Amino acid sequence: MYQITGDRAAAQTGESMKQTLNISTGSRSEMKNITREVQRIIDSSGITDGFCMVFNPHTTAALTINEQADPDVVLDMLGHLDRQIPWHAGYAHAEGNSAAHIKASLFGGSLNVMVENGRLVLGTWQGIFFCEFDGPRQRKIYVKAVPDA
Amino acid sequence: MYQITGDRAAAQTGESMKQTLNISTGSRSEMKNITREVQRIIDSSGITDGFCMVFNPHTTAALTINEQADPDVVLDMLGHLDRQIPWHAGYAHAEGNSAAHIKASLFGGSLNVMVENGRLVLGTWQGIFFCEFDGPRQRKIYVKAVPDA
Amino acid sequence: MYQITGDRAAAQTGESMKQTLNISTGSRSEMKNITREVQRIIDSSGITDGFCMVFNPHTTAALTINEQADPDVVLDMLGHLDRQIPWHAGYAHAEGNSAAHIKASLFGGSLNVMVENGRLVLGTWQGIFFCEFDGPRQRKIYVKAVPDA
Repeated sequence: MYQITGDRAAAQTGESMKQTLNISTGSRSEMKNITREVQRIIDSSGITDGFCMVFNPHTTAALTINEQADPDVVLDMLGHLDRQIPWHAGYAHAEGNSAAHIKASLFGGSLNVMVENGRLVLGTWQGIFFCEFDGPRQRKIYVKAVPDA
Repeated sequence: MYQITGDRAAAQTGESMKQTLNISTGSRSEMKNITREVQRIIDSSGITDGFCMVFNPHTTAALTINEQADPDVVLDMLGHLDRQIPWHAGYAHAEGNSAAHIKASLFGGSLNVMVENGRLVLGTWQGIFFCEFDGPRQRKIYVKAVPDA
Repeated sequence: MYQITGDRAAAQTGESMKQTLNISTGSRSEMKNITREVQRIIDSSGITDGFCMVFNPHTTAALTINEQADPDVVLDMLGHLDRQIPWHAGYAHAEGNSAAHIKASLFGGSLNVMVENGRLVLGTWQGIFFCEFDGPRQRKIYVKAVPDA
């Protein structure tokens, strides 16, 4: 489901580098938990302390951090967005996916997470989610691990 | 009301480190101005130039930067969120606090603020707010001061 | 339309520094594409690899990344915000611009974008937008280019 690519050979262990996480989505609206994959990128970077930037390069998708324990939370979030931002609402944009663009800016697409002892510093219930708002599609995100100076 | 903890002894002055700010909230929905406390953490870090990451590890709370001069702004923001995202709306999540999870992702929980001459770089009217959406609770946020290389 | 200021003389090429981008807005609600101006700041910083913080110091404006190809996307986003957050809605804040404050926190005002080979790492359709919600005004944003260690 996920594929990680990056020019590992070009970087020394512990150096800052950008890696790409490829993501396949399966429906129009979907939140995929990518916490494990981001942690794997931190592992491979060899960074012990610093922080990690996660960036979404798409305009109809987003990134968010929220509860990963009960999948109903994700359902309720997607349901709320669909009710507030209907797919058809007389939008001007000819491609017809303005609802997805609006959701993308409301959730945002640039996250920073601290890294301590090689682990993402997240709360007990938190997971990092890739939010698809105009799928299904092949997507990707960028992850950059930045070590403390 | 606030308590700051961190392994100060383990870090040299001016080094990057994570500190924890403990916050008690008093009602279900509340925005607490934590600007002074974050500045105090910057002060204690000994950092003069760089930036500061502020991170919320909770899934029913958020962080935002907005006006700190007139408390009515906070009232209007919380009022708007309550009208748009009612507490009861047929949510699936059994815990009953889906409204708080939705608000958390809309406001977001990861902020970066520049630091110059030891001071947070904020606009004239800006303050940093911890947003409680499912209180009252004991909460905490993480602050990491990152000095320029 | 844009003016960039910063203490270039005080910094060595490739060092981290904050620069200011001045922006004039022409109407109450407006999204201005500032991608080229932010890239110009990266160019002048001499940074090749690292990341770039973009920060909005205003409480009735925001920053977002979204589609820059079709201007109708921006129209649809601003239209949605106006419908959901009307200018008059019995707000408490006497200044009368609570709608703008609410929009500011929903979109957020602190972005991080990676820099590779001297270029902002953005998706094919992405642009960086300054979002005016209470114009017209003279505004500014801060941009800090942070090189890899």
